[in-house]
Amino acid sequence: MPQYTPPVRDTRFVLEHVVGLNAHANVRGFAAATPDTVDAVLEEGGRFVAEVLFPLNQVGDQHGCTRHDDGSVTTPPGFKEAYRQFVESGWGTLSAPEAFGGQEMPHVVSTAFQEYMISANMAFAMYPGLAHGAIAALVVKGSPEQQAKYLPKMVSGEWGGTMNLTEPQCGTDLGLIRTRAEPNGDGSYSITGTKIFISAGEHDLTDNIIHLVLAKTPGAPESSKGISLFVVPKVMVGDDGTLGTRNAVSCGSIEHKMGIHGNSTCVMNYDGATGWLVGEEMKGLAAMFIMMNAARLGVGLQGLGVAETAYQNAVHYARDRRQGRALTGPAEPNEKADTLFVHPDVRRMLMEGKAWTEGLRALCLWGALQVDLEHKAETEEDRQMAADLIGLLTPVIKGVGTDKGYEIATTAQQVYGGHGYIQEWGMEQYVRDARIAQIYEGTNGVQAMDLVGRKLAQNGGRAVQAFFRIVAEETAAAKGDAATADLAGRLEKSLGELQAATMWFMANGMKNPDNVGAGAVSYMHLMGLVATGLMWLRMATAASRLKADGDARFGPAFLDAKLVTARFFAERVLPEAGALRRKIEGGAEAVMALPPEMFLAA
Amino acid sequence: MPQYTPPVRDTRFVLEHVVGLNAHANVRGFAAATPDTVDAVLEEGGRFVAEVLFPLNQVGDQHGCTRHDDGSVTTPPGFKEAYRQFVESGWGTLSAPEAFGGQEMPHVVSTAFQEYMISANMAFAMYPGLAHGAIAALVVKGSPEQQAKYLPKMVSGEWGGTMNLTEPQCGTDLGLIRTRAEPNGDGSYSITGTKIFISAGEHDLTDNIIHLVLAKTPGAPESSKGISLFVVPKVMVGDDGTLGTRNAVSCGSIEHKMGIHGNSTCVMNYDGATGWLVGEEMKGLAAMFIMMNAARLGVGLQGLGVAETAYQNAVHYARDRRQGRALTGPAEPNEKADTLFVHPDVRRMLMEGKAWTEGLRALCLWGALQVDLEHKAETEEDRQMAADLIGLLTPVIKGVGTDKGYEIATTAQQVYGGHGYIQEWGMEQYVRDARIAQIYEGTNGVQAMDLVGRKLAQNGGRAVQAFFRIVAEETAAAKGDAATADLAGRLEKSLGELQAATMWFMANGMKNPDNVGAGAVSYMHLMGLVATGLMWLRMATAASRLKADGDARFGPAFLDAKLVTARFFAERVLPEAGALRRKIEGGAEAVMALPPEMFLAA
Repeated sequence: MPQYTPPVRDTRFVLEHVVGLNAHANVRGFAAATPDTVDAVLEEGGRFVAEVLFPLNQVGDQHGCTRHDDGSVTTPPGFKEAYRQFVESGWGTLSAPEAFGGQEMPHVVSTAFQEYMISANMAFAMYPGLAHGAIAALVVKGSPEQQAKYLPKMVSGEWGGTMNLTEPQCGTDLGLIRTRAEPNGDGSYSITGTKIFISAGEHDLTDNIIHLVLAKTPGAPESSKGISLFVVPKVMVGDDGTLGTRNAVSCGSIEHKMGIHGNSTCVMNYDGATGWLVGEEMKGLAAMFIMMNAARLGVGLQGLGVAETAYQNAVHYARDRRQGRALTGPAEPNEKADTLFVHPDVRRMLMEGKAWTEGLRALCLWGALQVDLEHKAETEEDRQMAADLIGLLTPVIKGVGTDKGYEIATTAQQVYGGHGYIQEWGMEQYVRDARIAQIYEGTNGVQAMDLVGRKLAQNGGRAVQAFFRIVAEETAAAKGDAATADLAGRLEKSLGELQAATMWFMANGMKNPDNVGAGAVSYMHLMGLVATGLMWLRMATAASRLKADGDARFGPAFLDAKLVTARFFAERVLPEAGALRRKIEGGAEAVMALPPEMFLAA
Repeated sequence: MPQYTPPVRDTRFVLEHVVGLNAHANVRGFAAATPDTVDAVLEEGGRFVAEVLFPLNQVGDQHGCTRHDDGSVTTPPGFKEAYRQFVESGWGTLSAPEAFGGQEMPHVVSTAFQEYMISANMAFAMYPGLAHGAIAALVVKGSPEQQAKYLPKMVSGEWGGTMNLTEPQCGTDLGLIRTRAEPNGDGSYSITGTKIFISAGEHDLTDNIIHLVLAKTPGAPESSKGISLFVVPKVMVGDDGTLGTRNAVSCGSIEHKMGIHGNSTCVMNYDGATGWLVGEEMKGLAAMFIMMNAARLGVGLQGLGVAETAYQNAVHYARDRRQGRALTGPAEPNEKADTLFVHPDVRRMLMEGKAWTEGLRALCLWGALQVDLEHKAETEEDRQMAADLIGLLTPVIKGVGTDKGYEIATTAQQVYGGHGYIQEWGMEQYVRDARIAQIYEGTNGVQAMDLVGRKLAQNGGRAVQAFFRIVAEETAAAKGDAATADLAGRLEKSLGELQAATMWFMANGMKNPDNVGAGAVSYMHLMGLVATGLMWLRMATAASRLKADGDARFGPAFLDAKLVTARFFAERVLPEAGALRRKIEGGAEAVMALPPEMFLAA
């Protein structure tokens, strides 16, 4: 009963007028990404996920994964065949390096496709998604031999990949890792330990799974500085690429979770499994962060992707369901009741969904562009600027993208009333699926600490100053146009709140770092408002210009909708900025004053 | 693994110093509610729910209810025996009228017990909870014969009760009801139709279930003015009270839901079932609102109750789990890591839980006091004032209580990181259970419309003016005391935002009622902030005074905790008031401007 249509026109609009694909034609790989090519990817990729993956979304939720006594795991009905089609059609190879069989398209284009795949089936999308994190680490840190051995089949999707960080006693604090790696004397290591919450840890989609595993070598210090990264194949791979015997790694159990039932979340037991060091010993954290940063952007995209599907269905329901009458008098007097659409509070919920999904789409794609530019821009200055921006915005995209994703999914469910709470309509699944994205790859509190504790101060605040400058310049430029003046003025004011909060941190963080920690999540959301506001300013500016130019590619109704939604964002979302600043300025005292034993009033 | 301890000390503090039980000793039934009696209820009732009902909470979630081919429904393992104990110990009879076997204690005292029961097991608490709604309607609208026949066994808990409103095509808009009631000529009616989402519609806990059913008599108009209320027993009851044959009402199926699996949510088929009119024909809406208002306050309490348990567990986990180090340097250098408790953002989450659960407890109990005073206060003036206040605050308690309940449950889950997402720790159940409370008994959007569309303007705004006056007087009085001056000042400012928003509605609602509808939910939350802020002002005032008096009943640590938490509420929660006002003042234009077909950007 649920529906999903890839929002191709909106993606196109963002790629052309916010991201500015054309303006970056000088960047390696971008020239090939002509509007026609990109359109083909969006249309064909969108069709694939809507027709093949989306019909399996409720199936996956209701069947879940099954672990058998021999440790093997069966994915939900239909997943294996869909995955085969996914590999055959090459959708996983869009932005992977040509050297390993990829199509080397811009990352921003494959990100657009990723969003659709998540919208269609988040649990399914995680199988290739996790492999992509592992690929990213091997591309940068793997030895030429490791790359030749593993990457082509991982890129093609014939083999899966995972990230093994968490252990029962060790989540965020990676210094607590106990998994051991003992040298075997032949260059390989023997890996022993238990990893938990391993997404796609074991399944029946691929012949092999390449695990990337954090472990400690003998004598390594008891901090995160002592961890190393290892590649541990599920099935040993011969020098000629043939599959050999099973490695000593197995799935001990799968978790019963709130959502993403279609993805197998495994306890993985390493019982002297053979692995090889990736990069240098005790430099595992840096290698891990390559996976992690890619994964965090992917998780931010999950917030958007699930919210989009939930939002679309709420729109359909609001147009179909009849209940009550418009406050301004019956809209359809011949019907027994008007549609939900006439009710201002239903519209308010839908507009929040629209303002945030379109805003986050622009932000995720603009962020993805920075990932491209970070590596491929022509000048060192441009590369550094992109690296600064995406470093700063990664925790914002992850944290705000997923907090808003959950909120929008919940709001979309609310539009359905009681029907939203029962399985049949599919809405409650979106809420349960969206919830994990706020938690994994570093909880959103951890994202906020990464932002205020690391990213703000790096290089003397270079990144945040650059971000402020961009917002200031674009708001100044947009204040002259009547169509964007109000939004620009309100965004300027929000930027002022963000700058004031930043100054407050600088003034009060030195004397007590808890002053920064206590405001971290509010600060992340304040920056999210400004960053998403910037995206809306760009969209409104482009819509206004295209309208004046008599554009026919997007059409006047689409452009008007952008302007209305930008106004909604200005009037109904940006006011939160002031409250967030004032919360931050509350500081740490009341937050930290209570002794632990007084939290329970009993 | 989850824990629950009834917050008896806090309840006591609220009853004595916010609600002021003693000050109302002149009210019928209150004199008997001495501190000792109330303590006994809280202690013994709390022990019962913690020992008997709480251990069944996860069981209920995991087993759910089972419908058999004959239409009978089995509740989860343990529920039947626990219910037997519940009836035997008389916990359901606390505030019921003595005439029907109740103890006639103040409603405010039974509300305190209700909170505990919900915290222990929300799905279980709904079985007697729904019966209470039906009892309330029969007490006011039932004929003496109906009362004599049904009420004693419903009050004792031997028989259950339900509310049957919703139909597939008919949720909020009760004018759409299709269930028919044809007179049988002997004073009874033959009821035919399908009701959905009927909580506790069929189960094995009681010998009989007394359904209260909305239906239309022949010739009734097609609006909500045409509906009548009927009492329809599952099993016919003879004049001597003996059970006879089965009535033609049965459970057609049970819903697969996001949560509250332990409660059976039924499709009920009425196939010419015999029923009797309750109250007058076509006056069903008024009778229904008696059930509904009681139910809405009960649902607000569900928000609090589930949030309390989730919060308590998050506190325990934060104290046990070690991860990372304090920003101010290791708190426990001899351990490998500090507890989660040292992290400011974890503390922020827990303080939000504490500030809202304690604030909502005070608000729910103060609201319950108004229910008592509405019926039992000595003077007409006092009764009217109480009726005004609870009329105004019912949608606020329901809407804000459940929105915050879901938010706190989600935040508590967040404290657990990945462990919060798996079934094992029990946290994800609280989120799923809390979610329904925002939806049923009128979605929170409907609550907001009840507030701004009906309650604000009733009797020329008498209720809201009274509320404003109370807040203004108490803030003015509290500004002189250093311990409460800052909170009082901030609350006064928030009251100013609420008054400004009210004026804005008055100025802009006449020319376009959508201006009111578009801001309704923001307004409800703004009033929730002020009402809960008033509760915190009372708690802080009492704590400050008790501290000065050297009080030993609550102890200085408890009183200090109240003052710290009040400060947190002032600094970290009240700032939202300004943002809510500004959203309201955005008006309806951007909310309503977009044509329906432009909501989807594809």
